Amino acid sequence: MTATPVPSPVLVVGAGLLGASVGLALTAEGVRVILRDISPATLHLARDLGAGELEGDDDGVRLVVVATPPDVAVGEVLRALREHPNAYVTDVASVKGRVQRWICDEAGEDAARYVGSHPMAGRERSGPAAADADLFQGRTWVICAHETTDAEAVRAVRDLALAVGALPRVMDADVHDAAVAAVSHLPQLMASVTAAQLTDVPDDQLSLAGQGIRDVTRIAASDPMMWSAIFAGNAEAILPHVEAAAASLQDVAEALRSASEGGGGARGVMGVLAGAVEDGRVGVARIPGKHGGAARRYAKITVFVPDKPGELGRLFNEVGEAGINIEDVQLEHAAGAKLGLATIAVLPARAAEFVSHLESRGWRVME
Amino acid sequence: MTATPVPSPVLVVGAGLLGASVGLALTAEGVRVILRDISPATLHLARDLGAGELEGDDDGVRLVVVATPPDVAVGEVLRALREHPNAYVTDVASVKGRVQRWICDEAGEDAARYVGSHPMAGRERSGPAAADADLFQGRTWVICAHETTDAEAVRAVRDLALAVGALPRVMDADVHDAAVAAVSHLPQLMASVTAAQLTDVPDDQLSLAGQGIRDVTRIAASDPMMWSAIFAGNAEAILPHVEAAAASLQDVAEALRSASEGGGGARGVMGVLAGAVEDGRVGVARIPGKHGGAARRYAKITVFVPDKPGELGRLFNEVGEAGINIEDVQLEHAAGAKLGLATIAVLPARAAEFVSHLESRGWRVME
Repeated sequence: MTATPVPSPVLVVGAGLLGASVGLALTAEGVRVILRDISPATLHLARDLGAGELEGDDDGVRLVVVATPPDVAVGEVLRALREHPNAYVTDVASVKGRVQRWICDEAGEDAARYVGSHPMAGRERSGPAAADADLFQGRTWVICAHETTDAEAVRAVRDLALAVGALPRVMDADVHDAAVAAVSHLPQLMASVTAAQLTDVPDDQLSLAGQGIRDVTRIAASDPMMWSAIFAGNAEAILPHVEAAAASLQDVAEALRSASEGGGGARGVMGVLAGAVEDGRVGVARIPGKHGGAARRYAKITVFVPDKPGELGRLFNEVGEAGINIEDVQLEHAAGAKLGLATIAVLPARAAEFVSHLESRGWRVME
Repeated sequence: MTATPVPSPVLVVGAGLLGASVGLALTAEGVRVILRDISPATLHLARDLGAGELEGDDDGVRLVVVATPPDVAVGEVLRALREHPNAYVTDVASVKGRVQRWICDEAGEDAARYVGSHPMAGRERSGPAAADADLFQGRTWVICAHETTDAEAVRAVRDLALAVGALPRVMDADVHDAAVAAVSHLPQLMASVTAAQLTDVPDDQLSLAGQGIRDVTRIAASDPMMWSAIFAGNAEAILPHVEAAAASLQDVAEALRSASEGGGGARGVMGVLAGAVEDGRVGVARIPGKHGGAARRYAKITVFVPDKPGELGRLFNEVGEAGINIEDVQLEHAAGAKLGLATIAVLPARAAEFVSHLESRGWRVME
């Protein structure tokens, strides 16, 4: 893709994490950014951080990025289309179909200048203080063109994405919403529901928690306000997955009741239980590998690492010497142990060389 | 804890991943190990790998470790108690209460020589070829004494755990089963059910998968036979969690239906959706930190890493120079990007120093 200059000045409406990050990234690229926010404190903080300037009289805005909470995004897009008749308008809300239909219904011909989008980036913290010019580096930025979208509007948002270091990807709004329902919204809900079951578990039992539950529930530490708005906004696409998941759990519960009463030998019990695990194996195998390639199995090598400063550095330094790329790494620590395990994923073809390199430098490897 | 010598010779029944790993670890410590397995191929492979010797005539076994699949563990424990009247007997099945009650009912006075246990260790692969002398290093090894257990039996299993590098922990069998239901079995099931929802998602939509769903579903790539046996064996303890999770999902589904029809403004919708996320936040915050300490928040620093050999090594080497311990690390790669993100967790008090150290060496840090 060839980048052309982002139409400027760019008006960013909503100077929180995403808006201020867009402002910082565009400003760093020499693009003039104007900020707007209903909160003067947020606005002035974003300005002081260098995310852009305050609105003036004759701005001649060419591109508007609506980065408000999703429940007010439609109103702000409509306002932007009205107030800036020469500007293209996008929003960055994480649900697209409903917003797009609403805007197309309300905006008439002006809807041609609107194209929704969704940068696949975020952080655990929010607000302009958490903003970063690099937030979008290497991330996918989905662009949802609709039937009446002006091709120039798509081009403007594509150039915006490229300017902040993201990878633009044009996708139908409803396809986007179906995708994030399965790969983002359902997993978020399942992590929350799993974690909620820990609320009443006694402390001494929680100490048996291992890496598995930590992985499953990591994203449960998220903002309830933001996620409830996303769930409500994408309700139609999420609902069938939630219903199917609930039905699976009920089938499992029924099998567990039979097992409690009659043992694992009751007819059908093992089939239901093994089937639930097998269905998951099939699903997880479909998740693509990194770089968007097909799912790929790496060789995983586990190395024992003394739990003290510098040891992990020494390990990775000596990995680097071998000239072998690390595809993934996972650290694990047992409760009470002063020893960590680093599991390093490498291309299978390099695994044997990798192990002998490490062992030659005195590392203990679990093969 | 002071270790005393493991009573030997030790008979290991079942020479798969766990049994052969016990054999390798004990053999490395100079303990005589005898192997038994119903599969001659498995048995001879484990022997050839150095996990122990084959059974002879006058073994005088002092400790039996039953490491068979859980559905045959009870029978093997009873047989061991019968055949080796001078031996203590343990099993390593991951569900303890039901096995213990069965054995106490069947074995009479011999039950005093039985004490169940559960080493919290495993791998994605199974069989003796995947065995490792270091499998138990730093892992918790739960020991479930019952009312009539001989104190010497507990001591023998404790010494076994210490000899293979594990951390023994005495716990009531039902408490153990309740604990693993919440911190291991439910998360396993939820990961499977979440992953199963990916089965029919088109490939182009799956390419939007990020780190969240990868974490939630990682453990879904597990063995259906093993997990269905575990679910059935711990059915009573898992059932209430599965029922509660199914009920939560149904409440969410109901709220999503209202949102689909009437929008997010329908009474009660946002309360249910935000409540589900909030309950998860409360639960996940209770998971203890590493080393078994209380849950602790680390400062997380994200560093941009070019995706080529040696860069991660250079990063960790320069982290090591700073003398700051890495508490956790997570790698992320966007689809299509040749740039990775390494998120490194350090003690909050060292975070500022850590960032300035990295920046002084030219690393780009997202603050």
